[in-house]
Amino acid sequence: MLQSPPAIPGMREDEIDTPALVIDLDAFEFNLDRMAALLAPTGVKLRAHAKTHKSPVIARLQMARGAIGQCVQKVAEAEILAWGGIPDILVSNQVVGAQKLARLCALARIAKVAVCVDHPLQVAAIEAAAEDAGIRMTVLVEIDVGAARCGVTPGPEAVALAQRIAGSKHLIFGGLQAYQGSAQHKRTVAERRTLIDVAVDASRRTVEQLRQQGLDCPIVGGAGTGTFQIESASGIYTEMQAGSYVFMDADYARNFEEGGAPVSTFRHSLFVLSTVMSAPVPSIAVLDAGHKAVAVDSGLPTVWQRPDIRYVGASDEHGKLEVGSETSAPKLGEKLRLVPGHCDPTVDRFDWYVGVRNGRVECLWPVAARGGFA
Amino acid sequence: MLQSPPAIPGMREDEIDTPALVIDLDAFEFNLDRMAALLAPTGVKLRAHAKTHKSPVIARLQMARGAIGQCVQKVAEAEILAWGGIPDILVSNQVVGAQKLARLCALARIAKVAVCVDHPLQVAAIEAAAEDAGIRMTVLVEIDVGAARCGVTPGPEAVALAQRIAGSKHLIFGGLQAYQGSAQHKRTVAERRTLIDVAVDASRRTVEQLRQQGLDCPIVGGAGTGTFQIESASGIYTEMQAGSYVFMDADYARNFEEGGAPVSTFRHSLFVLSTVMSAPVPSIAVLDAGHKAVAVDSGLPTVWQRPDIRYVGASDEHGKLEVGSETSAPKLGEKLRLVPGHCDPTVDRFDWYVGVRNGRVECLWPVAARGGFA
Repeated sequence: MLQSPPAIPGMREDEIDTPALVIDLDAFEFNLDRMAALLAPTGVKLRAHAKTHKSPVIARLQMARGAIGQCVQKVAEAEILAWGGIPDILVSNQVVGAQKLARLCALARIAKVAVCVDHPLQVAAIEAAAEDAGIRMTVLVEIDVGAARCGVTPGPEAVALAQRIAGSKHLIFGGLQAYQGSAQHKRTVAERRTLIDVAVDASRRTVEQLRQQGLDCPIVGGAGTGTFQIESASGIYTEMQAGSYVFMDADYARNFEEGGAPVSTFRHSLFVLSTVMSAPVPSIAVLDAGHKAVAVDSGLPTVWQRPDIRYVGASDEHGKLEVGSETSAPKLGEKLRLVPGHCDPTVDRFDWYVGVRNGRVECLWPVAARGGFA
Repeated sequence: MLQSPPAIPGMREDEIDTPALVIDLDAFEFNLDRMAALLAPTGVKLRAHAKTHKSPVIARLQMARGAIGQCVQKVAEAEILAWGGIPDILVSNQVVGAQKLARLCALARIAKVAVCVDHPLQVAAIEAAAEDAGIRMTVLVEIDVGAARCGVTPGPEAVALAQRIAGSKHLIFGGLQAYQGSAQHKRTVAERRTLIDVAVDASRRTVEQLRQQGLDCPIVGGAGTGTFQIESASGIYTEMQAGSYVFMDADYARNFEEGGAPVSTFRHSLFVLSTVMSAPVPSIAVLDAGHKAVAVDSGLPTVWQRPDIRYVGASDEHGKLEVGSETSAPKLGEKLRLVPGHCDPTVDRFDWYVGVRNGRVECLWPVAARGGFA
């Protein structure tokens, strides 16, 4: 069942029950504005990734600042956005299975919906589902631009798949999905640029080959928070799919900018507020947020603005702290903000966002697509 | 919002939408029966840990086989069990914060509820909440039996805390919580025994010192799936708190039994059913279950009964497989069972269990306390 919200608007932050997923609304809005300002001069559009936030409320705030739509990874996420009024949704992923395709095609009646493929069998299945639903579906070809995960080989294989889409009665060829996920957390700009240069070349070459076959390529989509400034300056990408920029996390904070400074483009706006629930001896303090509440796939969380305290161990429901000196040990009942190691899966653990400004709870937003794996 | 169930009873397993949390009901019932049979001759009781399953349905199946009650880690889990009719619940953890204590005390009107402490301030807070609610609360003293997480030092410090409980008007001293979590996944029996011997000695010594002060110790609780056979033979522990035994996982499967054989006491009964959603080239296959769906804190999942296939990389919603030879490569759309690396946090990602027997869906059970972090 849905968990009850851990706060009510008007409460002080220290009255929020924990663990709670807290948004610093000032930092969050700074991030929304900053991305819009960075992309405006490039002419490249933002199609923000909703796998990060899973919220039609946040999607609308992005679109109010110029985002042309949203990406999702899953049909269940697309449903939540479409039902929440988001008009333009790309499933930046393959969708396999008749049940999921029927759900996706049903959404095409209330929103502009598109999906990716990397195999002819997927094209046939989507064509059948679209015919069955009596709709037309926009389909992008995903190309493998270096991550060796999903996607066909750039060039002729991608062109052949695009032709198959364009030749299907109920399908529209929408363009290329060209996301290089493994570049996002390379620590230096030079490393990220090396990988994205390959992705840009592969995309440009494929677009040219499509044109030679008479196929226009309306969308070339990709990029994440770690690299969008490279893709958006490439002249070939048309849509940026960054998601994490709204929140940031401890793993993105380990990236460096040009010159070697830590990244400062966006601010940490997402926190897991946690309480010291055990402090039996001065050297030990245990928080009530373990790895069920804070994702540890990309490293442990850090403790916000407390360089004297380290989160050193996560079990299911316990977070063990290491305290620099006895004088700074957090007290039983004290509340600390954690910066998640990885924002996306941390968000997916919670039913509610608690929006905070100037120390007070301003809003509650549901994590509406939480657990939307289908 | 709650996700829709991925199946309906009567479906074939290969019709279940994925990713889905699947229980092999035969293996699951084998585990329930086996634990009951193993504990019966010892006279030690099972108070199964519901942090694993988060389900009043499964709790009732455990109690129908002799379990005297359930453990939980969180008040939100205790609520779900109490509302679901479970009569005897121990929060095997500290509960800090007035809101949580008020919720816990409210449950004492519909179930027998107990909670642990490791600090005098917690005793005072529970006394105040119990007085406020007009109930009496049973309180156990958690002792640190070697894991260096929560718990007071065994011996005089524990006795002093017990006396403080016994001297509180609205509290009842319930006994000792003596769980050694860090022993559960030591790979050899000798390693596990060495650690549990320390826990047993510390518990015995503390019980004796309590008796010397006139304090009876009704409960000495602890143990997990990795060690309960040691604690249950100790003559000092009275309640076993194993949880994972109902499902098992890939991490527990890496433990060895006496003589060096892999553990075979319980069977794998929990799986994440997943679909191959991308297979662009014969050497690559990608599943639709990444680390949002399958917890990776204790290692990657394994592929059930497919030694030729390895799950080698998890991103948010993708699971990358490495295939031994081209002939055995799973096909696009093929469904595979994953054995989660860690059962507890994997369960906590899903809204529904799908119970399967003889290849057919027999039941749907909600993961009722999912996300119950409060």
